[in-house]
Amino acid sequence: MNDTICALATAPGGALGIIRISGPQTLEILSHIFTKNLSDSQPNTIHYGHIVEFDATSQHPSTIDEVLVSVFRAPHSYTGEESAEISCHGSRYILNKVLALLIGNGCRQANPGEFTQRAFLNGKMDLSQAEAVADLIASGNKATHQIAMNQLRGHFSSELARLREQLLKLTSLIELELDFSDHEDLEFADRNELLDIANKINNRISSLTHSFETGQALKSGIPVAIIGKTNVGKSTLLNRLLHDDRAIVSSIHGTTRDTIEDTIDINGVTFRFIDTAGIRQTTDEIEQIGIQRTFSAIEKARIVLWIIDSNPSSEDIQEIIERTNDKSLIIIRNKIDIQTISNINTSLPDKTIIDISAKNGTNIDKLEKAIFQAANIPELSEQDVIVTSARQYHSLINAQDNLSRVLSGLESNLPGDIIAEDLRLVLNDLADITGQGRIVTNEVLANIFTNFCVGK
Amino acid sequence: MNDTICALATAPGGALGIIRISGPQTLEILSHIFTKNLSDSQPNTIHYGHIVEFDATSQHPSTIDEVLVSVFRAPHSYTGEESAEISCHGSRYILNKVLALLIGNGCRQANPGEFTQRAFLNGKMDLSQAEAVADLIASGNKATHQIAMNQLRGHFSSELARLREQLLKLTSLIELELDFSDHEDLEFADRNELLDIANKINNRISSLTHSFETGQALKSGIPVAIIGKTNVGKSTLLNRLLHDDRAIVSSIHGTTRDTIEDTIDINGVTFRFIDTAGIRQTTDEIEQIGIQRTFSAIEKARIVLWIIDSNPSSEDIQEIIERTNDKSLIIIRNKIDIQTISNINTSLPDKTIIDISAKNGTNIDKLEKAIFQAANIPELSEQDVIVTSARQYHSLINAQDNLSRVLSGLESNLPGDIIAEDLRLVLNDLADITGQGRIVTNEVLANIFTNFCVGK
Repeated sequence: MNDTICALATAPGGALGIIRISGPQTLEILSHIFTKNLSDSQPNTIHYGHIVEFDATSQHPSTIDEVLVSVFRAPHSYTGEESAEISCHGSRYILNKVLALLIGNGCRQANPGEFTQRAFLNGKMDLSQAEAVADLIASGNKATHQIAMNQLRGHFSSELARLREQLLKLTSLIELELDFSDHEDLEFADRNELLDIANKINNRISSLTHSFETGQALKSGIPVAIIGKTNVGKSTLLNRLLHDDRAIVSSIHGTTRDTIEDTIDINGVTFRFIDTAGIRQTTDEIEQIGIQRTFSAIEKARIVLWIIDSNPSSEDIQEIIERTNDKSLIIIRNKIDIQTISNINTSLPDKTIIDISAKNGTNIDKLEKAIFQAANIPELSEQDVIVTSARQYHSLINAQDNLSRVLSGLESNLPGDIIAEDLRLVLNDLADITGQGRIVTNEVLANIFTNFCVGK
Repeated sequence: MNDTICALATAPGGALGIIRISGPQTLEILSHIFTKNLSDSQPNTIHYGHIVEFDATSQHPSTIDEVLVSVFRAPHSYTGEESAEISCHGSRYILNKVLALLIGNGCRQANPGEFTQRAFLNGKMDLSQAEAVADLIASGNKATHQIAMNQLRGHFSSELARLREQLLKLTSLIELELDFSDHEDLEFADRNELLDIANKINNRISSLTHSFETGQALKSGIPVAIIGKTNVGKSTLLNRLLHDDRAIVSSIHGTTRDTIEDTIDINGVTFRFIDTAGIRQTTDEIEQIGIQRTFSAIEKARIVLWIIDSNPSSEDIQEIIERTNDKSLIIIRNKIDIQTISNINTSLPDKTIIDISAKNGTNIDKLEKAIFQAANIPELSEQDVIVTSARQYHSLINAQDNLSRVLSGLESNLPGDIIAEDLRLVLNDLADITGQGRIVTNEVLANIFTNFCVGK
């Protein structure tokens, strides 16, 4: 952290390009290439001048760009260090040249996420907030944005701090028991009381662990399978659902191309559609494999859109019920533009049934509403915490494991020192999430920050 | 210009995204969405806070992003107006949301180049400098960067100011002649002296007009045709030339994809290679058309790389000489790895002959040096003016036309008032380039600024 790093912080190709610099030599290095003296500049001020290159062969420096330099003084900067941002014209030639000049004068090209890593190491944010920065930049819709913003603003960190407080209280009560265990005449907290506190902590950690599934689904898109026999209009429906959202679809950054083509946003949540082969009775072995894949697509889906005939047989109905047991099921009767739909077979379960014309777009808005409801996304408020990081999830799972030993220890009246030891493990697991008060290894840091973009 | 405009100024997809705002309501609009009061903020200062959205259904505002807002106070801003820049996390969701909030609170989405257009209208730069801004952003190599930077820094404007001074001097001398033409005893400037001044002006305008060809070639890449019979190794040579420069090639912004694939940078200058069909004697009509296209590629090229056999016939040599009469010709003998090259046929003109192996890469550096020399690009210094804008070129051509009438008028001793009238036309033509002291129509402005990116 003694060196000074630099990186392009904006995507190339715009009107402006921003180059970030952070580290103790920031202003010293700038003095070699910027036409204004910034050594005494006030924090958070902007300075107009030229980036120039002194060429050994020429007497006059050549002007690389007219720029604005923003100066941030330590410790009141993003990284906590002396920092600056150069706002250049967005030409690749200029941006490369300015970076080369910075590096030529003593800067080092920053690694992915290194500015945020320094912010963490300088105590400007904890690890869960650092991870939220990457999530925030990648957020492509309202839901993922809200989750990342809540985490960046420290709501998860506060939640963990509250849990820590309760765990410490529990520990101190148990330690009190230990310290005075010889004094038989002293009253201690009832074990049932301790169990009560531990159970409350466990419930809260549990609900955080469970939020990971929702978090993952929101991050990668809620999986939706469109199922049905051949020719019921699955592709037409998919195209119809995707059609009006092309623009939004293409704006999702960081998802793979294949996935982008099959996702839409409904009410700020991304849904990811899974293509399937049409289902029909066949003795053809190859086709059977295809249909098997369709069934496994149902397994992976959270929501199933099942397009049925206007008059489904009881066998068909039976199959739908069996296959979608634990899924949100929406039954669709398509082609209402060309066929009359008979009354629905009464043996169908009490599920949403929607009559549409994928071709004409009739009732597609109604279907979208039903899909959104089926996803059962909790209404997110400013305070809600949803876990989206696998690293955080694993720490929570570890905490749960250790806490389960605390619970059974309390139930089976194990000695206090054994329980206190397990409690310390739980505390450590939770501390790993924020990295505060824990030694964070380089390996952990590397895993977190390799997923960042350069310049953040 | 009474409204306040906003636009994304960076390309989407980076760690940071910058949204620009300019116009009288800048700070008033920001007060509705930014958590800090900026109304009394000092010029060129940076403010940390949150962009928030007040939702009618919720009591608490929701946080869209943690941002830095840079404040620029009129008239000391890029546009000359009250301005601000919001530095957001580079998520598309956030950037779209912040733009939507700004527009919802009274901003208008800026047109392409509208910030620079306002800078011009507020007298912060002239039209030639405004055009240089777009060129600077598009500049992909050292040469185009240098030309645009020289123009942005006002070297062309100063050159035009000097010409204007000389033209005014000429006009005043002629008007002196007019005013006192009744006084036969008064001595006036000799007509030859006036002709001398006019010729000097003409030479300078001429050299500016001529620079346009170089300017265009540098902007779009110097055209190079690779010519030769089938199987002499044209494609191998092209691949070899392109190979090591892929990275630089792909960094040229704004050129079309097809062109990108066939350009390389040598010493900071872009060369654009033109694919051709191999030449051979044929009675096949279709193939003859292809070969005809090869010959027209030679016409379009500035440099011709002609790959010959190890032992070319006198007819071959004759053809090369005839076809490349007015071109920079480099004769290449390829495949020195597998064949011995005989002494060159003495009937070949005194042109660069280079022996290479395209396959092994032998002497490719020598060939690149020869290509760069053949382009005959003047060494550009900080003061040099190269015209790259077709609009400026046409004004110069008009000026030349009108000046030619001044010259012939002086030569044929036409009355001073007629000559003075033509001189005024020349002055107007030159003034059109910078737009200073001239009424610039909306049509002219629209033509200039449609080529800009949004946000500049």
